[in-house]
Order: sequence, then C-alpha cells, then structure tokens
Amino acid sequence: MLKNPTASYHKIKELSTRATLFSGISMLLEWDQETFMPKGAIEIRSKQVELIASLGHKEKTSKEFASALDALIDIETGTVKSDELSEQQIAALREWRRDYIKAVKLPASFVEEFAKVTSAATHAWADAKEKNDFKGFQPHLEKIVSLCRKKADILGYEDHPYDALVDNFEPTMTTATLTVLLERLKIPLTNLLKRICTKPLPDTSFLHRDYDHAKQLAFGKKLLSAMGFDKRFSRLDESAHPMCIPLQTYDTRMTTRISLNHPLMNILSCVHEGGHGLYHSHLPHENYGTPLGEAASLGIDESQSRSWETIIGRSFPFWQHFLPHLQEVFPEHLGAVRLEEFYKAVNIVQPTMIRTESDEVTYNLHIMLRFEMEKGLIEGKIPVEKVPEEWNRRMREYLGISPHSDREGCLQDIHWSLGAIGYFPTYTLGNLYAAQFFEVFAKEHPDWKERIARGELGILSKWQKEHIHRFGRQYLPEDLCEKITGKPLSEKPFITYLENKYTPLYHLT
Amino acid sequence: MLKNPTASYHKIKELSTRATLFSGISMLLEWDQETFMPKGAIEIRSKQVELIASLGHKEKTSKEFASALDALIDIETGTVKSDELSEQQIAALREWRRDYIKAVKLPASFVEEFAKVTSAATHAWADAKEKNDFKGFQPHLEKIVSLCRKKADILGYEDHPYDALVDNFEPTMTTATLTVLLERLKIPLTNLLKRICTKPLPDTSFLHRDYDHAKQLAFGKKLLSAMGFDKRFSRLDESAHPMCIPLQTYDTRMTTRISLNHPLMNILSCVHEGGHGLYHSHLPHENYGTPLGEAASLGIDESQSRSWETIIGRSFPFWQHFLPHLQEVFPEHLGAVRLEEFYKAVNIVQPTMIRTESDEVTYNLHIMLRFEMEKGLIEGKIPVEKVPEEWNRRMREYLGISPHSDREGCLQDIHWSLGAIGYFPTYTLGNLYAAQFFEVFAKEHPDWKERIARGELGILSKWQKEHIHRFGRQYLPEDLCEKITGKPLSEKPFITYLENKYTPLYHLT
Repeated sequence: MLKNPTASYHKIKELSTRATLFSGISMLLEWDQETFMPKGAIEIRSKQVELIASLGHKEKTSKEFASALDALIDIETGTVKSDELSEQQIAALREWRRDYIKAVKLPASFVEEFAKVTSAATHAWADAKEKNDFKGFQPHLEKIVSLCRKKADILGYEDHPYDALVDNFEPTMTTATLTVLLERLKIPLTNLLKRICTKPLPDTSFLHRDYDHAKQLAFGKKLLSAMGFDKRFSRLDESAHPMCIPLQTYDTRMTTRISLNHPLMNILSCVHEGGHGLYHSHLPHENYGTPLGEAASLGIDESQSRSWETIIGRSFPFWQHFLPHLQEVFPEHLGAVRLEEFYKAVNIVQPTMIRTESDEVTYNLHIMLRFEMEKGLIEGKIPVEKVPEEWNRRMREYLGISPHSDREGCLQDIHWSLGAIGYFPTYTLGNLYAAQFFEVFAKEHPDWKERIARGELGILSKWQKEHIHRFGRQYLPEDLCEKITGKPLSEKPFITYLENKYTPLYHLT
Repeated sequence: MLKNPTASYHKIKELSTRATLFSGISMLLEWDQETFMPKGAIEIRSKQVELIASLGHKEKTSKEFASALDALIDIETGTVKSDELSEQQIAALREWRRDYIKAVKLPASFVEEFAKVTSAATHAWADAKEKNDFKGFQPHLEKIVSLCRKKADILGYEDHPYDALVDNFEPTMTTATLTVLLERLKIPLTNLLKRICTKPLPDTSFLHRDYDHAKQLAFGKKLLSAMGFDKRFSRLDESAHPMCIPLQTYDTRMTTRISLNHPLMNILSCVHEGGHGLYHSHLPHENYGTPLGEAASLGIDESQSRSWETIIGRSFPFWQHFLPHLQEVFPEHLGAVRLEEFYKAVNIVQPTMIRTESDEVTYNLHIMLRFEMEKGLIEGKIPVEKVPEEWNRRMREYLGISPHSDREGCLQDIHWSLGAIGYFPTYTLGNLYAAQFFEVFAKEHPDWKERIARGELGILSKWQKEHIHRFGRQYLPEDLCEKITGKPLSEKPFITYLENKYTPLYHLT
C-alpha cells in the first residue's frame, strides 16, 4: 500500500486541473463564437479551438498524469492501491481511469482526421441544409459513419459497435438497453398521440402576436433569477440555438433564442438551459478539476433541464405563479387569457417535422427514429444514400407526417456532421430519468404543486442539489438512478407522467 | 548561404503563429473579464490567464523556435544568413530576434515571481485606492520597484536601468531622449496653461445633463461606423475603463464607458479606441503570427488613438459634421447649442487631479510627473514611502493643484501595480508622434478640414493605413518617424499644434 495517498491524489488533481482549465477556455471560445464574436473572426477562432483541444488531450494522456494515476489505481486492472482514500476519491480515480483509457486508445492521427472530417462536414451540412441538397452532404456523412465505425473498433465493445459510441455520452449505457427502452415507449407514445389527435387543437393564437424583444429577454432573466441564479455567477445572452455553457461552478453561461411571435421559445429555453445551469452551478467547486466536479452524464444532465422545462415549466402550478407576471409584461397580448387556456396552449401536442420544436409526447418519437437510423448506419444495414428514404418512412410511421424536404427531414440536426453519433439517445434518457426522479421528489414533497404555485422553485433545485448535483460523477448514471429511485431506469414513470397529464388535458378516455 | 530560405521563414512563422494564437486567447480572456464575465469567476479565470501566458512564453522561447530562427538570422550577432529574403522578411527576423533575446533573458522563476507579486499588488492597489490607504499599497510597490530594478539588470542597459524598462514598451527609446523631450515640453506647457487659466472657463453646463445610456451607446457605434468599422470584424461594448482589445485583424474589440451626465466620455473614448482599432484592423492579415502583423510600439499605437481623439475628435471640422447628428439624438439637451459653444466646451482646459480626465494641454504634465517619479524610484532617489509627498509636490508645481487624497493622487492609476513601470511615457510619445505625423498628413491634404467637415473620416484612416498601419513592425518607431516626417521625433509639432489651436480658442495674446 502507498505511503502518502493524499499527496498522490492531489498530484493527480493538480494535473487534471490543467486539463479542466483548458476545457473551460474551450468553452469560452465556443460561448464567444455563439454570442458576440464578429463573423469574420472564424478562421483564427477555429485554429484557437483546435490548439486548445489538442493541449487538453495532451494533458489527459500525458505520461506524468498516467503515472500519477497509476500510483493510486492500477490502470490495467482498476485495483485501488490505497485503503486510506475516501469513497469520493475512489470514485474520482475510477472515472479518471475510465477517461484516461478512452483518451489513450484513440491515436492522435485518428483524432486529427476525425476533427478535419467533421469540420468540413459541418460546413457542408450547413450548406446542404440551406440548399436542401442531401447529395451535397452524403459523401461527408459516409466518411463520418465510417470513422465512427472505426472509432467503435478502436474503443472496443462487447455486443454492438454502437455501444462504444453511446458510452462516450452515457457511460455504461448499451444498445440493448436502449433498444428495449425505446421499443417499450413506441406503442404507448404512438397510441397516446393517436388519441390526442382525435381531439381539437387548443387555441394558441394569443401566443403568435408580436412580443417585444427586450421585454422577452428581461422576462427570461426574471425566470432564471426565480430559479435561483445570481448575476455574480451566471449570465443569459442570445444565440441562434439556446445552450448552456458551464464555464465553471461560478460562471454559468446560458443563452436563449427570442422569436417575436413565439414567446414560449424564449421562456422554455430559459427554463431548460436553467435546468442544465443549476446542475453545473451546484457542482462542488472544491472538486474543480476532478470528475467529482463534473456532470454524471449527458443523460443525467438532460434530465435536469427537462424536469425544469417540461415537468415544471409546462405545469399548471408553474403558470399559476408566472402567468400573472407575464400578463403584467404583456397586458395587451395576454391580459384577457385565462390560466386554463394558457396552460393548454403551452401543452399543445401536434406532430411536427422538427425535433427541437416538438412537444413532450412526440419528442421521443423523433429520438427513436434517430436511434434506429444511427444503429442501422453503424451496422451497415442502412446505406447513407438511403437515409432520406428511411427517415421519411419512419416519420410517416411514428408521427404520421411526411417531410416536404430533407431540410426539414434528415438534414435538420447538426449532430451527425459533428461526428456525434450516439448522442441523440441521451435526450430520451434525460426524459426518462427526469420522470423517474420526479416521482421520488413528488413523493417526498406531496405539497409541491402548491409550493410551485407560490413561486417556490427552490423546492426542486434544493432536492436536485442534494440528490444529484453535489455528487458530480461519483456515481455512474445507472447507480445514481438506483440510489435515488431504488430501481433501474424504466420507461414507466415517463409514460405514467404523460398519461396523468394529457388524459385530463385533452379529455381522453 | 541557406538552401531554402522561404521554407525556413515559413517554419518560423508557423511556430510563431502558435504564440500569436495564445496571445489572442489571452486577449479574449481579458476582454471577457472586462465586459461580460460574472464577478465570481475571477479565481479560475486568473488561473486560465496564467496558464495561457506561460504557454505563450514557452512557445516564444522554445528550442525549436530558436533553431528555426537561427537558421535565418544569427541570434548572437543578428547577421541574416540568406540574401534571398525580402526587406519585410528581414525586418520580421530582426524583430523576432529582439523578442526572443528578451524572452529568454528572464528566467521562468523570475517571470513567475513577477506574476505573483503583481497579481497580489493589483488586488492590494484596488483595495488601497478604495480605502485611500497608501500604506496598504506601499509594501507591494516596494516589491515591484525592486523587481523592476532586477528586471532591468537582467535585461541589461547601457546608460540607465530605466532604459531597459521603457524598451519593453517602446523599442530603442531611452531615458535620455525622454528626459530631453519632456523637459522641452515643460515650460511651453506650463506657460500655455498659465495663459489659459487667466481666461474665463467656457460654458459646459449643457454637457452635464442626463444623457440616455442607450442613445449614447448607439451614437458611439455610429461614430465607429463613420470611422470605417464593420460589424463583421469589430464590436463595441462597455467596460469600467475604455479599451481596445485587438484579438486579430478581423476581430477588433473596443469598449467604451458611458457616464450619464458626461456624454463626451463615451464619444471621445469611442474615437480614441477606434484610433487604436483602425491600426489593428489594418495590420496585414497575411502576416498574422509575425511581427509584420503587429503594432510598431505602444507609442505609435497611442499616436493613432490620440490623433483621432484629439486632433480630429476635438476639432472644429469634426463637430461641424457631427454636432447636428448629436443634436438630432439629443434635441432637448443640445438643440439650442451653437457649434462654437460646443467646440469650446469640448476643448475646455482646466487642471484636474485625474490623468484620464485631463485635457490636451495638461495631459503631458501628468505624464511628466509619472516619468520623474518612475525614474526616481528606479534610481533609488525616491523611496517608495515618499511617493505621495513627491507626487503632490509635482502636482502643485506643474498643475497648480493639490490632491486632497492619495486616491486622486498617486493611487489613481493601475499601471504600477501591474509592474508596468516604463509604460507612462508612451502616452506622451503618442501625442508627439501624432502631432508630427499629422503635420505631414495636413500638408498632403490641405483640404482636410473641409473634408472632415463633410464627414469624410476615411481621408485620415486611409493615410494612416498607407504610411503606418500596413507596415506592422517593419520599421522601428524612430525609423518610421524619420520615414514619414523626414525628422526624428520632436516636441515642436505638438507645441505648435497646441499654440495654433488654443491661442484663438482662448483669445490668448
């Protein structure tokens, strides 16, 4: 056993902190690019991004780091070499080892090629989307699929090559588990959708008026403030796509998108990104530079944003509290709208072509489609040239609508061009985790509706901090789920949530 | 002679570009910190700044860079080893060598200690300034003076240790030359000031009304646009102290400060920072990563900002054009103000405690004071504890006023706490260069007043680009001055400029 494990742990932390400083710088470069950077700066900016990424990768794979790590945990076997470490420290070593093994597997030449191909593909995708020209993107997507297949081979997997890709975003999640979860969602979701589609659509006309830009932004800030954000540690800006860029515990940057005749875009974006932001601002600052200061997974991260955006942000009690505030800001638009009407409008269910514009019921059908496409691409069962056809067939089958163009079909999302095959499922995992976690929260807080209706949003953020945020990556997602809910992840809480919400809302039988 | 000098040059450029990428990242970190960063982020931000600075320093002093450089220019002797290089390339080699020799002289341990001491000193200074407590800052300043003295010894000098410090900001400038220039300014300036002070102050009351924040900012943007800035390549934001942070040719970030009852603060800040910005946005992008893509010196840089802020921005023809625009924005405040009145108000001369608030006549007296203080500190003739006393004595002597407190006396500027002893003289050099350059410009453009009065600001920026901006560091400041004006730098054009302007303005005899 090792003589001074605490000193060794601090040595690892010190080296790892350098990598984390780089990743914070990368995030600032990205944040700036998405918010304020003049367009003409992109060429040099891309080089800066590349430079910092390569330095971060070097830190994570350096011999010095490996030997510091190996002093406390056998990199080969995972055996911890000291019995004087805390449970948290052991978990950090486990995660450091996982990251290290992954990082060293990919040769620098592969990482470079991947970066080059995806950089070109991202430009080609934007161009192809604008021109509605899938053929222009096809050769790029072919390269990406082939590189992702190669990546899976390099990283290794037991059952399915897609496992290796998903694992990058959601540790230990497998294709088999995803297949089961998504299959179990398919029938309840399509059935619920069919039942809802027999009912008349709620009136949403009052939402499609001209809502002042500055007032919308101010309202978004007010919402974040109500969620607990403090200007000393966070900001809200605007960007083409809303996002949360968590530079560090004490610097959470969120962005929103303001559409003049669609105020919910801004409102729900703020609450969604705020959900991510709360997670990151609650990560323990003393563990900065270690896995204990990082989010558990993309799925868990998304569960935090979705519980705020959907379970809370589209709930009746939330609007009991906030509608009067919104009416005060927009008396001419909303002064005459009743709470019940507004609640219905916020929860309109209607198949749409675009994932990011979809409601709670159809959202996961969009993900299901993408999951099946990705799996087929990686397996080689769907050739890239068949992507539009396969996409459109599934849109008809699951959502009953046909894209008029690839722009609103298989070219709508940026993810594939970034090489992020395996990312989409984390959105659905987020929804499922959110519902399963919320069941526990609701049981522990039987008065949550009354309290949210009084504007006490802290009731949820406090619970999330206590049960999720403060742990960072101490628990693997599946273990965290068991720890909180006593059960493995299941689709049931989500289905129950939807049924309980939409049955009365749409007078279903 | 070398076989493939072009390839060797490109190798140097490639390595140097990495250092430039780091410096651009440093600037972004700084820009963000001054504009949008939440206050709570400072601890991690400081670490990021330190990390990037150390990486930039490593690049500039790497063995790989040294050997690439030495292949084309003998680092010991400065002999260029190829006769196939262009004049520009030879100049770049000369400057790379200068930078390299300087950078390797300072041991990493010294650089680190300097960074630590100044970081603590900056905090202590802010605190001492707030509390008006020089004693709290004194031990920090003592350390800084002693480190700067040591720095001078390490860098080396022929005549005076202060030479080594000034040279960091203004290559080849010496204490002897500065002493002569400043001594020659002293009597004409103090005399002019005395003559002006016998005259009544112009009415400036119309400037001290409540000017709307947003309208002021919009007007600042309009001015920059009139100066030739394009949103695709530049921005204007707000910060506590106006500055220009030139991230790269295609990304010039300027900031302004808006004071509700002092609209000239914003206006002249925009024009001043715009002057810096034009310089940097005109640097040849194809020389990014080389000295040819950098400003010649701080003095030359300041000459660009000051020619815009003072010679143009406080000129009669400038306001012939812009006063009607400003009146349109603020009709209630300025509608009844005549051009002559406004011009007088813009050019009010009045001794003030604060350098940054001072007019064209007194500004250089503030610098003279600081130069004498710095020289005395470095020579050991002024002990740090005597700084307030020596400062106040000079204020009385040169400006005829006594600071009521050290806050508005020797604690007003941040420079010393940053370790930037030797920086202040570049402000005066900027004023002198500006006047001397402008004489040539005016001779070449006898109609400049009419054209500026028509809003044709491009007449000056085009001339500056042609004669100054496009060369980067190709010419040393003194050589550039000779090249443009046919003479070495002199105080005379500046004195003549002031006399010609203020004699009629104040009806002096």
